[in-house]
Amino acid sequence: MLTRYKMTMSYDGHLFHGFQLQPDQRTVQGTVEDALKKMTKGQRVIVQGSGRTDASVHALGQVIHFDYPGKAIPANKMILALNSMMPTDIIFTDCQIVDENFHARYSIKGKWYRYRVSLDHFVNPFKRFYTGHFPYALDVKKMQEAGRDLLGKHDFTSFAASGGQIEDKVRTIYYVNITKDEKENEVIFDFIGSGFLYNMVRIMVAALLEIGNERRPLHDLKRVIAAKDRQEVRQTAHASGLYLYHVFYDDVPQKYRQDRYL
Amino acid sequence: MLTRYKMTMSYDGHLFHGFQLQPDQRTVQGTVEDALKKMTKGQRVIVQGSGRTDASVHALGQVIHFDYPGKAIPANKMILALNSMMPTDIIFTDCQIVDENFHARYSIKGKWYRYRVSLDHFVNPFKRFYTGHFPYALDVKKMQEAGRDLLGKHDFTSFAASGGQIEDKVRTIYYVNITKDEKENEVIFDFIGSGFLYNMVRIMVAALLEIGNERRPLHDLKRVIAAKDRQEVRQTAHASGLYLYHVFYDDVPQKYRQDRYL
Repeated sequence: MLTRYKMTMSYDGHLFHGFQLQPDQRTVQGTVEDALKKMTKGQRVIVQGSGRTDASVHALGQVIHFDYPGKAIPANKMILALNSMMPTDIIFTDCQIVDENFHARYSIKGKWYRYRVSLDHFVNPFKRFYTGHFPYALDVKKMQEAGRDLLGKHDFTSFAASGGQIEDKVRTIYYVNITKDEKENEVIFDFIGSGFLYNMVRIMVAALLEIGNERRPLHDLKRVIAAKDRQEVRQTAHASGLYLYHVFYDDVPQKYRQDRYL
Repeated sequence: MLTRYKMTMSYDGHLFHGFQLQPDQRTVQGTVEDALKKMTKGQRVIVQGSGRTDASVHALGQVIHFDYPGKAIPANKMILALNSMMPTDIIFTDCQIVDENFHARYSIKGKWYRYRVSLDHFVNPFKRFYTGHFPYALDVKKMQEAGRDLLGKHDFTSFAASGGQIEDKVRTIYYVNITKDEKENEVIFDFIGSGFLYNMVRIMVAALLEIGNERRPLHDLKRVIAAKDRQEVRQTAHASGLYLYHVFYDDVPQKYRQDRYL
């Protein structure tokens, strides 16, 4: 008998070689699978994530599922058991027993990524693993206006790292919000979309920073999207500022559907 | 010819074995002295801090001085040179050339320590190196009221770790402020005093948390101070929440002299 668990987790990515299992590397998937193997006394339980995150990338709302063999454990006991076996850079924040139709990856209706950029003159020692760094002039209003050009359904070939293997590069961006956190001296980028290509958020952030720094025209992203050419944006913002913030398994709420007004 | 430099620095303490130089250990003092040795082509320059910080303890305003031999380097060049040689967990934020009467330790008029306590149910992966952790009921108003009992000139023997070698345990506490950061779900403790004994801030925080959790009477600190016995407070809050926030070399400003109203 198998019981399917859906679990939500946060992790500090800076000491992991990414989410996906790799032999002889410390990964999030590997860490969770090792704990489950102890619980099952040696049986491998495959952990399926909503998607991979790269080395140094963080999660505040990664979602996984797995099928636990043998006697079902109540969800509130499963979360305590797994948290007690996790290292301090992983924490499970929610656990539910779900039916077999739920799939952490294929049931997704949308994903929310956040990117934090520190504007401090020097790299702040307390933020070196948790933000990107851009110590130059930045016009947040211009970036916010430029961000609207990303909304809607587009072929995002220009924003996909060349290493990606997915052929269909069409995605829908529902929500783009760029704000200044004055207290922290940071700019926060939020993106919600149907899905994101490999490195897509980091490439969008890099392009928006160029616009905010007036090294790229205000509405250049329209041209970049139309060009379908990765060479149009050569930069990729550093992994350390990126957070998988939330995964939607129901329709993305209307309040986050800025694309409705296009 | 020697030129004395006063420099202010921040560091993330979690990967250091404390401030003070120790053979074969990564320390803040050792890291700065190694950089200065490169600048002088092999001559040792002794770095004097305002005081030590323990392993895992952070600084947002540690102050050091050193006497640089040879040709004087302008302060704005010295800070750039040293920052370029620092690892990413140390950053210098200010540099001044001072006269030989200035001493990072003996010229001190006051010190400001901050302590951050996370109230999250589980240890937050992003705060594990940067806060203490207290996932229990806590009455911040009671702690604030109890904190006033620490103000003024007292023999703080009850709040000094037994390892300390300083005989005179009399210190003056000028300012105690305890606030809740709702957004971060943290309690922030601020203490300004003439000086602090070994582990004194961490022991005061532990005692205040017991009061806030109603495991100790509201005005018990008066009795604890009078007892002059370390056994009166058995707990010490974890090093990871402690920050050396500021060092005063001028009189502590009147707005921080709560002890005036006693």
